[in-house]
Amino acid sequence: MEKVYRYRLVDVHQRDIYPAEMVVSSGRIKQIRRVDTQEHWPYILPGFIDAHVHIESAMMLPSEFARLAVQHGTVATVSDPHEIANVCGIEGVWYMIQNAKKVPFKFHFGAPSCVPATAFETAGATLDTEAIETLLQSDDIYYLSEMMNYPGVLHRDEHVMAKIALANKYNKPVDGHAPGLRGNTMRQYVSAGISTDHECFTYEEAKEKLEAGMHILIREGSAAKNFNALIPLLAEYPEHIMFCCDDKHPDELILHHINHHVQRALQAGHDVFDVLQAACVNPVRHYNLPVGLLRVGDPADFIVMENLVDWRLMKTVIGGEVLFDEQVQIQSVNEEPINQFHTRRVNASEFEIPAPENNPRIRVIEALEGQLITRTHWADATIEQGVLVSNTDTDILKIAVVNRYHHAPPAVGFIKNIQLKQGALASTVAHDSHNIVVVGTSDTEMAHAVNVLMEAKGGVCAVSPHHVACLPLPVAGLMSNQPAEWIANAYAEVDKQAKAQGTTLKAPFMTLSFMALLVIPQLKLSDKGLFDGDEFKFVSLNN
Amino acid sequence: MEKVYRYRLVDVHQRDIYPAEMVVSSGRIKQIRRVDTQEHWPYILPGFIDAHVHIESAMMLPSEFARLAVQHGTVATVSDPHEIANVCGIEGVWYMIQNAKKVPFKFHFGAPSCVPATAFETAGATLDTEAIETLLQSDDIYYLSEMMNYPGVLHRDEHVMAKIALANKYNKPVDGHAPGLRGNTMRQYVSAGISTDHECFTYEEAKEKLEAGMHILIREGSAAKNFNALIPLLAEYPEHIMFCCDDKHPDELILHHINHHVQRALQAGHDVFDVLQAACVNPVRHYNLPVGLLRVGDPADFIVMENLVDWRLMKTVIGGEVLFDEQVQIQSVNEEPINQFHTRRVNASEFEIPAPENNPRIRVIEALEGQLITRTHWADATIEQGVLVSNTDTDILKIAVVNRYHHAPPAVGFIKNIQLKQGALASTVAHDSHNIVVVGTSDTEMAHAVNVLMEAKGGVCAVSPHHVACLPLPVAGLMSNQPAEWIANAYAEVDKQAKAQGTTLKAPFMTLSFMALLVIPQLKLSDKGLFDGDEFKFVSLNN
Repeated sequence: MEKVYRYRLVDVHQRDIYPAEMVVSSGRIKQIRRVDTQEHWPYILPGFIDAHVHIESAMMLPSEFARLAVQHGTVATVSDPHEIANVCGIEGVWYMIQNAKKVPFKFHFGAPSCVPATAFETAGATLDTEAIETLLQSDDIYYLSEMMNYPGVLHRDEHVMAKIALANKYNKPVDGHAPGLRGNTMRQYVSAGISTDHECFTYEEAKEKLEAGMHILIREGSAAKNFNALIPLLAEYPEHIMFCCDDKHPDELILHHINHHVQRALQAGHDVFDVLQAACVNPVRHYNLPVGLLRVGDPADFIVMENLVDWRLMKTVIGGEVLFDEQVQIQSVNEEPINQFHTRRVNASEFEIPAPENNPRIRVIEALEGQLITRTHWADATIEQGVLVSNTDTDILKIAVVNRYHHAPPAVGFIKNIQLKQGALASTVAHDSHNIVVVGTSDTEMAHAVNVLMEAKGGVCAVSPHHVACLPLPVAGLMSNQPAEWIANAYAEVDKQAKAQGTTLKAPFMTLSFMALLVIPQLKLSDKGLFDGDEFKFVSLNN
Repeated sequence: MEKVYRYRLVDVHQRDIYPAEMVVSSGRIKQIRRVDTQEHWPYILPGFIDAHVHIESAMMLPSEFARLAVQHGTVATVSDPHEIANVCGIEGVWYMIQNAKKVPFKFHFGAPSCVPATAFETAGATLDTEAIETLLQSDDIYYLSEMMNYPGVLHRDEHVMAKIALANKYNKPVDGHAPGLRGNTMRQYVSAGISTDHECFTYEEAKEKLEAGMHILIREGSAAKNFNALIPLLAEYPEHIMFCCDDKHPDELILHHINHHVQRALQAGHDVFDVLQAACVNPVRHYNLPVGLLRVGDPADFIVMENLVDWRLMKTVIGGEVLFDEQVQIQSVNEEPINQFHTRRVNASEFEIPAPENNPRIRVIEALEGQLITRTHWADATIEQGVLVSNTDTDILKIAVVNRYHHAPPAVGFIKNIQLKQGALASTVAHDSHNIVVVGTSDTEMAHAVNVLMEAKGGVCAVSPHHVACLPLPVAGLMSNQPAEWIANAYAEVDKQAKAQGTTLKAPFMTLSFMALLVIPQLKLSDKGLFDGDEFKFVSLNN
């Protein structure tokens, strides 16, 4: 059976807009006929593509992510299952793929290149070269993802180079991750065969990388926001720019996705065809994605807009199937969780730190609003009954990381700028090893918060003497298997409760989730102890 | 993959309207959840069903009929391929079925019970009991259609009863056709196992048949119009009324279909659930059709209306597939014609009738505007140079039927009330045997018109000395294999040309097509000669 669609075709190849009849047969475009009409037909254009996103950051399964994404005109993603791989290994990657296949959204997963992220923390799994080859052999894996170990690349580390060689062997691109890398070292990194970067913070850095032949992904997510700095590059390098979110939290994914990049770029005065080149065409070309671009022979993947002024989405179609319009949605699927969780109740006494004999000065992690980096702050410890305690007056609070993969004493330190006045906050979303990170105003409440997450086998929670708010994340401690709207609501509730307990951070759980991310300096805390990211070594609390 | 549809459900089973989320999986309804909402959702209701229609009368292939029908909210038909069977036999039936399968519209064909219609004409084929059994055995055949031979039923004719017995054997219903039959004879007809009638003209006749247990199809087509007479029965017999068109010409099918019955019934003040019972539910029950009625487990067949006031159709969905909305249509399919056509050029001399020696009085068919019946009119013949000729002043014109299946001399007579002032009109749509019927102002122009149709291997044409307008109907001389809109335009052109040649008939080709239909009295012309339908015998021109 063949159907005829009648629209104004936004032709991204000929850079023209004209009324056309498009014949679709078995999910593919069979014919496009330019026609004359005075009728008002809506606009049809290729769907948007998120060129780099960790689905796990949305705290929902791929199937739910898809359900929301199509509501914003997204038809495909290039997705790195790095987070679940750190928890569940290769099984986590297969789990994401099998769930993704339950919806007709076009996910394109990669083989996570750096699991675990460092040797200074306990992750749930390791992906060695053998595992990487197993993944790259699969038709479900489209690229080698996010080569964060750029020192390893620069020093031509044997294991790193073996993984890149495998990607070449299977003819799949290698994604970069090299924040701030410039000049010769950057060109050395590129020469290893790494073709993209989504970590640029400045115009100059991105321009240099573009000139070195890299494809630059302009990232605007819940965590990092680089749109304003990088969008001026679009007019100059329209063939080498893509759009991505990297991390998109549930409360934001419900509002917008790549359509937000598109609208902002147009408002900034960019040419519509340049914008669609970045939002639709370039990812298909670079990653060789089986996503339609409205040519004869392409899969019938497209979106429909009432007009090109307010970009109100009328319809999202993938493979000829309407997945979103005013009355249609993808149905949620039932999915059993997988996890790696060594649950054990913790006691307040495990967070106890005896007061040092002479020196009351301690190293404190100084969290910074909206940033992944931290600073080292030296402060006087508050001592009560011979032990170091949290002090809400000085805003120097205890932070701990509890190993979730096997029994080990928690690593405990101190943190500034959380501004919690009561209770504790805890999360099993804690990049990249996803142990339990907890901050609190007392050891008792920290233990309570951790035990709430032990009970839920993962999640984020805000605990006070009178109230527990918790979003359980039973899938690897990273995702819920509930519907997206439920997750977004629950996340907003926990966030609200955290703020009621005094924190002034805009996104307290996001900030918390980066306090164990060792690769971003300066002072962080892994399950093994305080870590100086500049020196790349463990440091003690007070020496 | 499962999708959720959110609509106000017009629940024809519980006779209620409420907002609901409907989960559709693999083309079927998996779940219906009643929900609370203040949002304005459109209305979803089962699609309309034409309970008796000869697709051939639309002069287009089933695939094109479907393309138009879904634009009016029709999702299914009960169709009798009687016309093509008269031309091409069982091959014609298979041809309709194979073409119908190229679109996802739900056609339900029957086995034509009366081919040929009478023994007094030459048809292209005979469907004997063996052919009927072959058809009834097929899953593509849903019923034994239109038992027009009611004398045969009443007299328990052996062949007629054998066909009815076969329908019983295969558990398929038998459709009736008994115009005007009343009282005991009607009840005798019903007792043979005939369960429907679509030929009622009067309220009283229909009510009597309903009381005898028949299902009454209220017919409103291009030819017969019984809506006003019969619609008052709906309130009293909502479970036994269906809607049908019987014959719907291309120029009318493009405007409306069963939706017209629905709107008129509602305007007449009928309850919406009674109306939908007739338009949607009853045909499914009576004919046991695999058409969804918006219950869990049903195929996802439905239509969407913006409101229940002007009944503007937004969408038609069959088996979960959108086949019509503002931007979507079914694509036309390419189909090679089949035909049975013995072509030979005719000469004007073949229409010559020598003047009788004594008696210039002749029998003239008196056509009546908008009616299938005719009257016998006696008139003085016009004689020129020893032969009878057409006379436009007295409006007594020559009519002829030319056998299209093998060489035979034309049957020639005279007709009144066509009012043609110049040229000739001809048609290969000529119920039920579909020979060539032609009426004209001169023998030469009659021959010209017939030769135009010979050339086209079927069609309708209006021929004048200066102009030929022709709609070729190469599929069995009944249908075009062109797109519906083209057919409707071409038909309108030929109709316009016929009127320019003087005829004052509203639908001259429709009137012409019934002049060879012997089973409807009084005076008709078959390829074998003038026929008196009251006496059921041939008569001469002037005795």
